[in-house]
Amino acid sequence: MVVVKIGGNVLNNPATLYEALDYFSGLVEPAVLVHGGGRRADEVLRAMGMAPKMTNGRRITDQASLEVVTMVYAGTINKDIVAQLQSRGTNAIGLSGADGNAVLATKRPAGDIDYGYAGDVVAVNAPLLDALLRLGLRPVLCPITHDRHGQLLNTNADTIANEAAKALAGAGHRVRLDYCFELPGVLQDINDPESVIPHLNRDTYAEYRATGVISDGMIPKLDNAFRAIDGGVDSVVIGNIAALRSGRGTRIQSS
Amino acid sequence: MVVVKIGGNVLNNPATLYEALDYFSGLVEPAVLVHGGGRRADEVLRAMGMAPKMTNGRRITDQASLEVVTMVYAGTINKDIVAQLQSRGTNAIGLSGADGNAVLATKRPAGDIDYGYAGDVVAVNAPLLDALLRLGLRPVLCPITHDRHGQLLNTNADTIANEAAKALAGAGHRVRLDYCFELPGVLQDINDPESVIPHLNRDTYAEYRATGVISDGMIPKLDNAFRAIDGGVDSVVIGNIAALRSGRGTRIQSS
Repeated sequence: MVVVKIGGNVLNNPATLYEALDYFSGLVEPAVLVHGGGRRADEVLRAMGMAPKMTNGRRITDQASLEVVTMVYAGTINKDIVAQLQSRGTNAIGLSGADGNAVLATKRPAGDIDYGYAGDVVAVNAPLLDALLRLGLRPVLCPITHDRHGQLLNTNADTIANEAAKALAGAGHRVRLDYCFELPGVLQDINDPESVIPHLNRDTYAEYRATGVISDGMIPKLDNAFRAIDGGVDSVVIGNIAALRSGRGTRIQSS
Repeated sequence: MVVVKIGGNVLNNPATLYEALDYFSGLVEPAVLVHGGGRRADEVLRAMGMAPKMTNGRRITDQASLEVVTMVYAGTINKDIVAQLQSRGTNAIGLSGADGNAVLATKRPAGDIDYGYAGDVVAVNAPLLDALLRLGLRPVLCPITHDRHGQLLNTNADTIANEAAKALAGAGHRVRLDYCFELPGVLQDINDPESVIPHLNRDTYAEYRATGVISDGMIPKLDNAFRAIDGGVDSVVIGNIAALRSGRGTRIQSS
């Protein structure tokens, strides 16, 4: 079973999005797609005369922004992806976390920063995903969840992908998690796309971090990947579509 | 099995919407909800500096309007309804026509009027609805469909409800179709809410039309209802929530 996560940079460009959808459609294993937001929500906010509110690269989701991200993530982006997959013969079914109680979350408590209607994942509904996959459907999850009390919540797509992969692994499946982003993999030298690190485990990751080869933006992504591995996911592959398609990219496993 | 259609006037007011969702949640039969659009799409269009384009009360769906109706119908409205139903313990799953190929449509050919990205229903996927109902899920259909070539289309919700009811009847189910609108039923005297016509069949409908008791706006609604009956639907009930809840309203049957 494969969970594929596509991020904002892939979504923002129709060419890379369509490549990603071709890849997803071509997978022979039962597969789940998780997509992020991309820049369209900010464009719609601005078109409606509102300013996106961000802090440390994270959105502050007030009531008006929640409506816009719900419209754009669960409406425009999710339905465009599903329609495109249908045109490729893939029987996709788009889901927010509220649909079938697919992803239950809880509103993040306000600490030093109040993120507003931001949701932290409580549980991904593996029996639902399993049942839909058995019907021959491919779930497409958007980063909107709910709290089961009628409140929708804006939720990090990487976390949803991670929790979905772990939940499916917990249900007895052998799961691979594909993190599709703009680079061919985790690079030894950020300026050399040929310098992809083919394999990482806990030990080699610790070494690369100690020597400063892996730093900055890759660390949360890789910490996330190792959390998936610790949660029973068989492997995590990080790379762009060309890399994923050809079995390259960086493969993360427990050993 | 019951298909419940709720229209714009019900959606525009949170109080009547929540009443309708209470009614839907309380149904003991397997049930499908179909919702229309309401006024939010026009508000969002205007907020984005665009003017809604209508002719004879029907929307001209150009590219920009299509994005907005997709956002609002499949995003905001559908997900708010699903989250509200989840909070009532109803395991709802929101669907556009693209999701699971639930409703296949074809772009309306441009005649005297070019309606743009308006879809005419080709087929409702009864096996999908059946399979979801068997999983204990309640499908919630929004009025966005697709053409299986990647194009989303804006589609009349009454027609979707009708075609869904007929498709489920064709799959061997005994189906009731509830049309929930703002009046307690089909009235003999539009100024007297006590004058609900309790039953209609082809013969009595013809009489009421001949004498002018039923005219104008009710005719397309009732023609639609009789098309459902001709298509194998057991009964159609037209009324507001109070009427539907108490088994009143106007019941349309073949005899």
